[in-house]
Amino acid sequence: MTGDIIGPVDATVVPRYAGLATFARLPVLEQVGRADIAVVGIPFDSGVSYRPGARFGPAHVRQASRLLRPYNPALDVSPFAARQVVDAGDIACNPFDIAEAVGQIQAGARRLNEEAMKLVSIGGDHTIALPLLRVIHERHGPVALLHFDAHLDTWDTYFGAPYTHGTPFRRATEEGLLDLARSVHVGIRGPLYTSEDLGDGFLAVHCTDIELHGLATAIERMLERLGDRPVYVSVDIDVLDPAHAPGTGTPEAGGMTSRELLTMLRALAGHQVVSADIVEVAPAYDHAEITGIAAAHVAYELISVMSGGKT
Amino acid sequence: MTGDIIGPVDATVVPRYAGLATFARLPVLEQVGRADIAVVGIPFDSGVSYRPGARFGPAHVRQASRLLRPYNPALDVSPFAARQVVDAGDIACNPFDIAEAVGQIQAGARRLNEEAMKLVSIGGDHTIALPLLRVIHERHGPVALLHFDAHLDTWDTYFGAPYTHGTPFRRATEEGLLDLARSVHVGIRGPLYTSEDLGDGFLAVHCTDIELHGLATAIERMLERLGDRPVYVSVDIDVLDPAHAPGTGTPEAGGMTSRELLTMLRALAGHQVVSADIVEVAPAYDHAEITGIAAAHVAYELISVMSGGKT
Amino acid sequence: MTGDIIGPVDATVVPRYAGLATFARLPVLEQVGRADIAVVGIPFDSGVSYRPGARFGPAHVRQASRLLRPYNPALDVSPFAARQVVDAGDIACNPFDIAEAVGQIQAGARRLNEEAMKLVSIGGDHTIALPLLRVIHERHGPVALLHFDAHLDTWDTYFGAPYTHGTPFRRATEEGLLDLARSVHVGIRGPLYTSEDLGDGFLAVHCTDIELHGLATAIERMLERLGDRPVYVSVDIDVLDPAHAPGTGTPEAGGMTSRELLTMLRALAGHQVVSADIVEVAPAYDHAEITGIAAAHVAYELISVMSGGKT
Amino acid sequence: MTGDIIGPVDATVVPRYAGLATFARLPVLEQVGRADIAVVGIPFDSGVSYRPGARFGPAHVRQASRLLRPYNPALDVSPFAARQVVDAGDIACNPFDIAEAVGQIQAGARRLNEEAMKLVSIGGDHTIALPLLRVIHERHGPVALLHFDAHLDTWDTYFGAPYTHGTPFRRATEEGLLDLARSVHVGIRGPLYTSEDLGDGFLAVHCTDIELHGLATAIERMLERLGDRPVYVSVDIDVLDPAHAPGTGTPEAGGMTSRELLTMLRALAGHQVVSADIVEVAPAYDHAEITGIAAAHVAYELISVMSGGKT
Amino acid sequence: MTGDIIGPVDATVVPRYAGLATFARLPVLEQVGRADIAVVGIPFDSGVSYRPGARFGPAHVRQASRLLRPYNPALDVSPFAARQVVDAGDIACNPFDIAEAVGQIQAGARRLNEEAMKLVSIGGDHTIALPLLRVIHERHGPVALLHFDAHLDTWDTYFGAPYTHGTPFRRATEEGLLDLARSVHVGIRGPLYTSEDLGDGFLAVHCTDIELHGLATAIERMLERLGDRPVYVSVDIDVLDPAHAPGTGTPEAGGMTSRELLTMLRALAGHQVVSADIVEVAPAYDHAEITGIAAAHVAYELISVMSGGKT
Amino acid sequence: MTGDIIGPVDATVVPRYAGLATFARLPVLEQVGRADIAVVGIPFDSGVSYRPGARFGPAHVRQASRLLRPYNPALDVSPFAARQVVDAGDIACNPFDIAEAVGQIQAGARRLNEEAMKLVSIGGDHTIALPLLRVIHERHGPVALLHFDAHLDTWDTYFGAPYTHGTPFRRATEEGLLDLARSVHVGIRGPLYTSEDLGDGFLAVHCTDIELHGLATAIERMLERLGDRPVYVSVDIDVLDPAHAPGTGTPEAGGMTSRELLTMLRALAGHQVVSADIVEVAPAYDHAEITGIAAAHVAYELISVMSGGKT
Repeated sequence: MTGDIIGPVDATVVPRYAGLATFARLPVLEQVGRADIAVVGIPFDSGVSYRPGARFGPAHVRQASRLLRPYNPALDVSPFAARQVVDAGDIACNPFDIAEAVGQIQAGARRLNEEAMKLVSIGGDHTIALPLLRVIHERHGPVALLHFDAHLDTWDTYFGAPYTHGTPFRRATEEGLLDLARSVHVGIRGPLYTSEDLGDGFLAVHCTDIELHGLATAIERMLERLGDRPVYVSVDIDVLDPAHAPGTGTPEAGGMTSRELLTMLRALAGHQVVSADIVEVAPAYDHAEITGIAAAHVAYELISVMSGGKT
Repeated sequence: MTGDIIGPVDATVVPRYAGLATFARLPVLEQVGRADIAVVGIPFDSGVSYRPGARFGPAHVRQASRLLRPYNPALDVSPFAARQVVDAGDIACNPFDIAEAVGQIQAGARRLNEEAMKLVSIGGDHTIALPLLRVIHERHGPVALLHFDAHLDTWDTYFGAPYTHGTPFRRATEEGLLDLARSVHVGIRGPLYTSEDLGDGFLAVHCTDIELHGLATAIERMLERLGDRPVYVSVDIDVLDPAHAPGTGTPEAGGMTSRELLTMLRALAGHQVVSADIVEVAPAYDHAEITGIAAAHVAYELISVMSGGKT
Repeated sequence: MTGDIIGPVDATVVPRYAGLATFARLPVLEQVGRADIAVVGIPFDSGVSYRPGARFGPAHVRQASRLLRPYNPALDVSPFAARQVVDAGDIACNPFDIAEAVGQIQAGARRLNEEAMKLVSIGGDHTIALPLLRVIHERHGPVALLHFDAHLDTWDTYFGAPYTHGTPFRRATEEGLLDLARSVHVGIRGPLYTSEDLGDGFLAVHCTDIELHGLATAIERMLERLGDRPVYVSVDIDVLDPAHAPGTGTPEAGGMTSRELLTMLRALAGHQVVSADIVEVAPAYDHAEITGIAAAHVAYELISVMSGGKT
Repeated sequence: MTGDIIGPVDATVVPRYAGLATFARLPVLEQVGRADIAVVGIPFDSGVSYRPGARFGPAHVRQASRLLRPYNPALDVSPFAARQVVDAGDIACNPFDIAEAVGQIQAGARRLNEEAMKLVSIGGDHTIALPLLRVIHERHGPVALLHFDAHLDTWDTYFGAPYTHGTPFRRATEEGLLDLARSVHVGIRGPLYTSEDLGDGFLAVHCTDIELHGLATAIERMLERLGDRPVYVSVDIDVLDPAHAPGTGTPEAGGMTSRELLTMLRALAGHQVVSADIVEVAPAYDHAEITGIAAAHVAYELISVMSGGKT
Repeated sequence: MTGDIIGPVDATVVPRYAGLATFARLPVLEQVGRADIAVVGIPFDSGVSYRPGARFGPAHVRQASRLLRPYNPALDVSPFAARQVVDAGDIACNPFDIAEAVGQIQAGARRLNEEAMKLVSIGGDHTIALPLLRVIHERHGPVALLHFDAHLDTWDTYFGAPYTHGTPFRRATEEGLLDLARSVHVGIRGPLYTSEDLGDGFLAVHCTDIELHGLATAIERMLERLGDRPVYVSVDIDVLDPAHAPGTGTPEAGGMTSRELLTMLRALAGHQVVSADIVEVAPAYDHAEITGIAAAHVAYELISVMSGGKT
Repeated sequence: MTGDIIGPVDATVVPRYAGLATFARLPVLEQVGRADIAVVGIPFDSGVSYRPGARFGPAHVRQASRLLRPYNPALDVSPFAARQVVDAGDIACNPFDIAEAVGQIQAGARRLNEEAMKLVSIGGDHTIALPLLRVIHERHGPVALLHFDAHLDTWDTYFGAPYTHGTPFRRATEEGLLDLARSVHVGIRGPLYTSEDLGDGFLAVHCTDIELHGLATAIERMLERLGDRPVYVSVDIDVLDPAHAPGTGTPEAGGMTSRELLTMLRALAGHQVVSADIVEVAPAYDHAEITGIAAAHVAYELISVMSGGKT
């Protein structure tokens, strides 16, 4: 298929800082008609409980993705040559009505899924994971959830609201969207409201586990848990330590390094990752784009895994 | 009344950077029972259309107000000695439901008004002006509105929402809360959606007017318009140029200086200012607290005017 | 002509922070075929003598232009409805060879000028003004130059280089591109290398003149000088005080406010502005986008003037 | 005892960003009369030798502690329910006279110790550790010191001054406040003045040790050294790498991660921690509150350890 | 005298960003033996009552002064050619003992004055003005003080300390160092402790005066007051609005612009300025060096005035 | 030799923040005549392909090196006492002509090498490594290259330019300057243009290797590869993770910690390090000097290794 694929703008002709900011300088969807993988922004942050600002996440991650180059040596794959990857722009949604926005995201993702097999969604806050999982469920039935996050995001409601950035996986569980026995939270840490927040059914790999038992062990547990199920990957950027991701809404000390996160993601090579999201990048708190760069690399590794083997 | 008044913490005993951050290091309401003037935070920003973050405004302005000293030489008044001024804490409201939050603000302000004659509210976004004006109307009937802002905030709806930071004065007009013939917008500038956004009934003193005709002329027009009506003052900090107030949600170039704004406020001395708000301070975009300091000084001048003459 | 014009993305459907970052959320050139006015980025900064970084200027100004709305009340014009205005993307040029880059800019601007009558170029550093003026000269012969800048940019060479950000107007004068008798520098200030740097033939309105004699006088001198010649406007953002434009390469204290600059630009209404550039926005030194916002507003006022009267 | 304990403000009623900034939104001491554990600010930084600013540390750490939730899953304890924890405000001290300030801190801490068994002091610079240790000594005799720091802080004098942020443990040793055989420095790194600075009697766990031999080994050495003595924990935030704690006065590359530090602190569970301090948070150098958040989590883990088992 | 004068490093050979950071890239005192005017740093900030950090002021202003060029068109003078100007390095002083530091500054300035007729001192906080005035008094007797500042700095003591950044002019008055009848404060604004803080004898030009009556009037009053006395100029950078000088210790809204300040300083041309200081630049709060650049320009204008007419 | 050696300014007399900013407050070359080791700045960044600004690197690293103390406990050496180390200032070079600049750097380094045996060069961008290696080759023939970098820097040309920051080691290999069989890249990560970018002959220790196999293994491989050849060490600061070094031009997530880098450098003790460079520090993107501090420590460890054993 490589022959017809349109890749990123050629950096030997157009410097990386030049041209409109699409993800990794890829073509927009309109330019190619159909795609294997679409990167889509979902600039919605009205579900946050602390620092808002993730509505600017998509624009920020796009700008920070200008340095991504076409060949991934860690996985020996050229993802943008192996698959048609595009930037599908943003799904517009109502900032003043969470329920309406959740509907708009669901409709938008479903529509987009008709033109692109797999989505890599850039948030926005974690509220967006619920409508995205609903669309995935329509296609794949219950999927294994691989959830990187400082928090479990399994609260029931917050200020009476059922859809917030703290509740998507409670709702998803209730709606039967997940294969709980194959799902795993990674990077959990920090204080909770009560011991009941720990959730049921989910396996959690705590940051302390990584510190004391090493990353290889964590990878092993993750892979064992996922088995060979189709996987949806949801990355809350606050899984990284604030040193690595200051630009986020509910930072917790004691997190993962970006090297650990990228290494875990690469371990998914060979698994069927059906779609993914990267959420909670709040640019107003970022510095020198380091959070944006981390998020762009996370997206790049996920796309690499999705793009399968070498072309 | 001075005898019983509790003023700010004594800076010759407790350095200004020490102690809990109440506004101007004033006592909290619980400490004094009743007050003449209460500073109250309203950390609500779910009505913003661009950069969120004003929910952190009250905490930021309090921290930036530590340098305020007790004597105001420009008006020759010691406001914290002339009147019992307190910090009444924050009105808690639901970040996920604008209508509920508007109700909570209205109820909270009404309750607070029973203990303190006049309120100086620190936002939060401009959505909060509507419930505050409703409470004022219950007491005073239609008031003159003195509105400092880069924008008119007279849109009808936005994404179908009737209550946002762009609509409070449209709603207030419809509800008859304002004496339009005595109301004035100051500092308007920048592009609009359509020419109809210019509003009816309101007088607008544009930034260009101030530039070309001078501040004294602007003050004159303002005072003439207000006449001797009770005045509610609403200060959107974006009335200041982004150089003076980078920490805000919808900045527009070409604004007022803080010196111009403070001078205009001092010209209200002798007028009956019934209450006031200062909104749209978004700390994540501030630098070195300069926006917070400007907002704190705005509050200080308003309190000075409210506190009447020298004690 | 309004019927066929494609304007900016509708902000009541797509929030201002959503969607790809084109200037003012206007369509790209490809989308409309031809245009009256094209905004084009020229991300070149290899001609700077102090702080580099203006290569990121176009992306930064585009991001900061998201708040621009369609109606300009100061001039009573809706520029994006009166004329087809587009974002023409960036002209790619070689960062390692100034002479080659100057040639690329000249060729790119000439080509673009075939599809769009007037260009508003976003730099990049001031080196780009020379090739842009050459293209203008091909069309219009010698034009009046209206140059806003802290510096005269009339050095001969610097480190032997004839094309740098300090030399464009010396070269332009030598090449006969300017009608010197109708040209004027505004905002000059700060120390020079020698008294000979003051240049010949140009009129200079110093910042001290504005301070002591007022803006109205400065406007008068500017308009008198320009007469009725076709005007090319070149705005080095460092004409603004560092308080208003920290994000630039050679800041000088004692500059203009953004309000003064915008007011002067609006005074061009009725004049034939043939093209314009806004240069030296260096985002790494900006804060809260205030420099980018100022530059976006400068571009907006220039487009408003170019777009002529009300539609 | 839980019945009578007043915990933090309920985050399901008052959003975390709302309300006055007490540590972890706990009650102030006045509100509860007596406490088991008091968090107290000591905003004194006149003992620093390089970057000042830690006087703003208490206010900054309080603001950054808003996200702390009540249940600590790592230790399976709800510290604010197990014990009455309060914010005791700040100890005011003279910024212009170090000796007087040391006396004020000592008197203030002694007085506070009558109302609260254990203190968690938020500096301020490391000078404050000496008067705090004196008060501890009055109660407990010589204690084991567990000292996390990039530096040993065992200089003799600096510019003739015996009390500075580089000397507290030299003084404490001379005054017999410490059980040297049970004390340990952790995180030491970076260049010293002379090889004599290495101190006598203290055991030092260097950062290189942690890098090459792993955290588990470091924890083992720490616990072995402390034995079962009552422990005073002193955490200079510069023990963290500048990536994790940019907001400090004498940063040294090559430090600990926040995850390592928090894990080491949790290993104290079961030990008698008699009091603790967290010092050298200099907010002017912080970014996105990451240093403040790290310090707040350090305090939280220390309080968790102090609060003993599950309630 | 020009023949023997060593000026700044030649910017056509060594780029402005290269080479060690001396003020304006001037030679150090050792290089030239004697000088007419010496710029000297006094990195002392232990006298501050709020934000510390001015100890880093000299290094910051030197770095920000790299852009200063040799010819001053506003005064038509080339100060570094007209006079031998040097960078005399810093006067070292004890950060832990204010009284000793004041003595060290006095001794250092006296010694330096033997090698350089006039000093331009870069603080450091305002405490340093007292020892500098003492040295001036030894040479010139009581001088006219021209004091630019948001504050009067005429407190008696603060926390019992007679020498702080709030007291120098009270002490100087008591010691008879000033010709009060010829002295003037400019730029005063903001709240005070009491009405008695307004001081006696001094004339004060308030910021409001400048706003309402114009700069020309303020200049007139200043010049009238100074008469033909030898003048000592003391510039607290907080005389500028926080928009122009965020990097300072006790910022007050409503201040002067850098253009106003520079214009006032240029009006001193022809007066005998015997020495000067620029204080309270606190780099940790600066952004993009804008405060440092303003301070460097202030120093440059003062040196220009001191250097007399054209060579 | 210690007797005649001039070390850094005494910090017990002159506080660390005082005095002109030479590297580690060492004497300048002029002061001592000859030196064993010279630190030299090369402020050149016209070879960068993304974020420029490393031209300000030397000044920034000098300022950040003020905290370096004379004794290195990790290696038990006092490098500034063991050897005469100096700050040799900056090599001036043309920012507008890369080829000329490369020649100027080569000439400058050769000249300096006559006065100082070993150079520690502070960039500037990585372009400078080529002329530095040429000078080394003149003295030592082909050397082992120990290259810390996120990137290989072995492109052929970029925009037709043979000398850029992406090409030095391709050129050096072609010119026979390196002993490839003894050279090693450490810290490589992130996407490449093509799989051919991986280079031939070089050994690469990837960041993933360090993550999964540990630092001790990486050190072993490095030492094995270097054998006993004279080593030139080239440290691109982007080898560190953006969390540790935000202030750089082409940041890649997933990098090394500063602790890992410093530990690897210390492992060179006993090896003949003939010279070294530290490049790509771009201060405009730094925060709280953390990148500068990391670079200063890197230089300090390299000097320590160069200075050999204890004196």
